[in-house]
Amino acid sequence: MPEARKRSAQPHDAVASDGSPWSARRRQPRDHDMKRDAVVRAATKAFNDRGYHNTSLDDIAAALGVTKPTVYYYVANKEQLLFECFRAGLQRIREAFREAERSDRPARERLSRVVRGYAQAIASEYGWCMVRAHEHDLGPAMGAQINALKSEIDQGIRRLLREGVADGSIGPCDPKIAAFAMAGALNWIAHWYREDQPMSAEEVAEAFATFLENGLLPRPVPAAALRG
Amino acid sequence: MPEARKRSAQPHDAVASDGSPWSARRRQPRDHDMKRDAVVRAATKAFNDRGYHNTSLDDIAAALGVTKPTVYYYVANKEQLLFECFRAGLQRIREAFREAERSDRPARERLSRVVRGYAQAIASEYGWCMVRAHEHDLGPAMGAQINALKSEIDQGIRRLLREGVADGSIGPCDPKIAAFAMAGALNWIAHWYREDQPMSAEEVAEAFATFLENGLLPRPVPAAALRG
Repeated sequence: MPEARKRSAQPHDAVASDGSPWSARRRQPRDHDMKRDAVVRAATKAFNDRGYHNTSLDDIAAALGVTKPTVYYYVANKEQLLFECFRAGLQRIREAFREAERSDRPARERLSRVVRGYAQAIASEYGWCMVRAHEHDLGPAMGAQINALKSEIDQGIRRLLREGVADGSIGPCDPKIAAFAMAGALNWIAHWYREDQPMSAEEVAEAFATFLENGLLPRPVPAAALRG
Repeated sequence: MPEARKRSAQPHDAVASDGSPWSARRRQPRDHDMKRDAVVRAATKAFNDRGYHNTSLDDIAAALGVTKPTVYYYVANKEQLLFECFRAGLQRIREAFREAERSDRPARERLSRVVRGYAQAIASEYGWCMVRAHEHDLGPAMGAQINALKSEIDQGIRRLLREGVADGSIGPCDPKIAAFAMAGALNWIAHWYREDQPMSAEEVAEAFATFLENGLLPRPVPAAALRG
């Protein structure tokens, strides 16, 4: 947007970078939410690039082309930003769970849907923050909220595992161990996956779902595949 | 050791806690190594309890009942302590790889040995530091060393996966994805396992090896098991 920008009437606003929601043309009813989202996205990028502890609110303000008080207008502190990054990524996993709940397919297929949504969330820009947001960085109140959200996911996976063992679509397993192993494999994607890699997030999600379903031991080749 | 302790002749030493290698009775040729190990163990415990960033060298000195200059006598800085914690845990994984190299069993069995050693290392007191020691906390030189050591493990697992696919003991898989999924599942143990849990580290290792081998899909029950 090369045209000259007007200064926003909102307190603390500064000159915005190109394409930023601080651009005067974008002021609309949902303005506050959009700007808040932009702050969360900028924080996510900064945390990804240099780590949570090495990022200041000044860095995030600078990346957005606004002043630090403008950032404080949308979030209380850096800790809340980490929390919001986590929550942004979590939406995708929750959507996968909602789809799984609506379906009447065998539990293994519903779990596979959750695994794919989970993998894509972790391969997204929010992945690193999601995986980090459990640690000593968060104070007790926000840490407890994050733990509750993570526990909800863990319990949802265990429930699908139990249903799968019951309906015969999943082999006998310890649901707690299997859920931890799956969450670990999926969370770890944040440690190695970058968006500039040759595999897309969808391909990674597909590959992980396949590996977790098959395991290491060889399986008999289905007769249909041999005929094919 | 209730008997009175003499002050060590070594510079910077202070009154030691009971059972500490700073006890006068323990001064021997391997004294330096033992004391250094104790510093690394105390650091590991402190990092586990309150996080790397929330731990100071003063805290570690206090836990050992020595002064901060004594800690500096053994390590250059807190970063080096994190590195040493990583290296201490790594020994167990390397030992498992050495065993795997000496064996002529199918690659799947050798990989299983590595998985168990890996799981036990991560379930040990060093696990949390091993998993943490890849992050923005380490400077470029030490970070590069850690990355090289992790890459060695990753490549070793991929090699065993390729050998297993070749000898038929492992089903067809993408070794890169499978190695990442396995490392993720195993590394994640540090996030949930505590030594006061009902499962021992050996039981966790066994359960993970079984899950990674079997996967989620049911397997035909072997005829021998049916007869049993």
